[in-house]
Amino acid sequence: MKSLPKGMVTEEHFEIRECVQPVELQTGEVLLKALYISVDPYMRGRMSTSKSYIAPFEAGKPMEGGAIAEVLESNVQGLEKGDVVLGNLPWREVQVAKGEGLNKLEKGVAPLSYYLGILGMPGLTAYTGLTCIGKPKSGETVVISGAAGAVGSVVGQIAKIMGCKVVGIAGGESKVHYLKEELGFDEVINYKEYKSLAELSEAVVGSCPNGVDVYFDNVGGEISDAVLLNINRYARIILCGQIALYNSTEVPVGPRPQIALVKNSALMQGFIVRDFAGYFPEAVKALAQWVKDGKLTYHETVIKGFNRLPEAFIGLFKGENTGKLLVEI
Amino acid sequence: MKSLPKGMVTEEHFEIRECVQPVELQTGEVLLKALYISVDPYMRGRMSTSKSYIAPFEAGKPMEGGAIAEVLESNVQGLEKGDVVLGNLPWREVQVAKGEGLNKLEKGVAPLSYYLGILGMPGLTAYTGLTCIGKPKSGETVVISGAAGAVGSVVGQIAKIMGCKVVGIAGGESKVHYLKEELGFDEVINYKEYKSLAELSEAVVGSCPNGVDVYFDNVGGEISDAVLLNINRYARIILCGQIALYNSTEVPVGPRPQIALVKNSALMQGFIVRDFAGYFPEAVKALAQWVKDGKLTYHETVIKGFNRLPEAFIGLFKGENTGKLLVEI
Repeated sequence: MKSLPKGMVTEEHFEIRECVQPVELQTGEVLLKALYISVDPYMRGRMSTSKSYIAPFEAGKPMEGGAIAEVLESNVQGLEKGDVVLGNLPWREVQVAKGEGLNKLEKGVAPLSYYLGILGMPGLTAYTGLTCIGKPKSGETVVISGAAGAVGSVVGQIAKIMGCKVVGIAGGESKVHYLKEELGFDEVINYKEYKSLAELSEAVVGSCPNGVDVYFDNVGGEISDAVLLNINRYARIILCGQIALYNSTEVPVGPRPQIALVKNSALMQGFIVRDFAGYFPEAVKALAQWVKDGKLTYHETVIKGFNRLPEAFIGLFKGENTGKLLVEI
Repeated sequence: MKSLPKGMVTEEHFEIRECVQPVELQTGEVLLKALYISVDPYMRGRMSTSKSYIAPFEAGKPMEGGAIAEVLESNVQGLEKGDVVLGNLPWREVQVAKGEGLNKLEKGVAPLSYYLGILGMPGLTAYTGLTCIGKPKSGETVVISGAAGAVGSVVGQIAKIMGCKVVGIAGGESKVHYLKEELGFDEVINYKEYKSLAELSEAVVGSCPNGVDVYFDNVGGEISDAVLLNINRYARIILCGQIALYNSTEVPVGPRPQIALVKNSALMQGFIVRDFAGYFPEAVKALAQWVKDGKLTYHETVIKGFNRLPEAFIGLFKGENTGKLLVEI
């Protein structure tokens, strides 16, 4: 990352640099070659100096995030040449890394890239946020914004498995088609078709005649305003992300949600996936089983080439991806 | 209530009417004479036709709410002349009422009016909201807006009993003095001294050097914006009321709180006291004991005269009362 963006992140905030890394491995170090690097909306929050749950990125230093890499050389017990690991790594093609924090992946269980998606952070986020905060009951109506994204597409399918009526909100005809025809969502609202909050709210009413019991919010902004107008008593609103607001330079302003929460004894809760680390074993087991049984359909958008990482990351905020977006190195 | 107010409620929305009530009691009816009538902020929500948890008041019909009344005549088993009851009653000096929903009060336990306050709805609201949603831990910082009101003043004292640092927000020097000197709050912010959100936020920082863990919000609006800028990770925000917004004619707009909730994995939950009815026996027992032991100080503002009910009610929204506001008939 060349510089901290103010407002919308663009290509000019990045540069590709050639670096010389030490060749001699110390004890406890491995030499890694990146195979897949994940781009995720939460990373935009680290490109800022404001107070957050995670330290900011520094201008002039590499971006960092979930990655799958192959071990080229190892000075770490339990890891050897040819092993594949999952870790939180700087965006580098080849690098020396410490062994701590790397998880060796079992080959052959699922495509390796799945560990950056359905069996990794986005899948765990979907599972824990929906079940630990949303606590959906069979027959309830679950609405998901950013429904075609890496997290939203999994949330909707889990909610279907749990017997809920599932309504997605997404932008564009191809996403609507994907969610309805491939993932089995009951209803999908294409927010781009509506010109005002009132119109969008009418669309929510039309898709949710019994109101909204659970709202899994990846987006924020006006889409959420429309959903909030239609929540039921004891509704649960899961704040997973606010991608519509991440590139704002001013404090985002909108209708105060507090009145709807008081009137409906409703709950709104933010979280990050680590808050529910205790549920990860249960979540991975369930997700892997559903994938195996064909109950969970998983879609990746794969962009090839290390130098296209900035382009891929920026694409997240333009709503370009369907399913999990990642870069194959 | 003569007409539904749009915007601030005023005397012209009320009128005192003389009515003739049937004299002959049917089986299951009592003749009641009101002793104390409660005025509460939530009633403003019923003076509106918007969707809520409770049916709206009708123009031309009496207001209704918590009241303590003496039985003048009874056709109800278990109630006799001279008994005192608590019920949800129309604002009338004398009336025929059904026996269902009336609770006979034991005389001599506490002043009768306490059942409209510390041992009634406001006390139960304070206890259940703070403990069931806020779940404060010893050593945490609890901030309360509307701190000198019927609910806020009890919340702060319970939080002190639970070992928390308690910071109240209230308007005016006499309230600050009352909360600090009489109720033992650690810090009190007089919001009227601050001219901007930034200044008020600085005051919150000054009073809460370790940040805000629990925020019991009776008020909403800009006061809450200032508190939200200073919440800690895993903060709990209890939405009890939004009195600053109840008289708005437009949709209240402000900084979106969702980003602070996501960044801090924080929770914001609305409630009404009935949501926690299962905790009432425990709550009444604890509150009565604390009052008896002198750990809970209770303050009432009593206005005398049935015809001053409108004036008393309107006073709630002007921030005129300290402690519980009620009308003695």
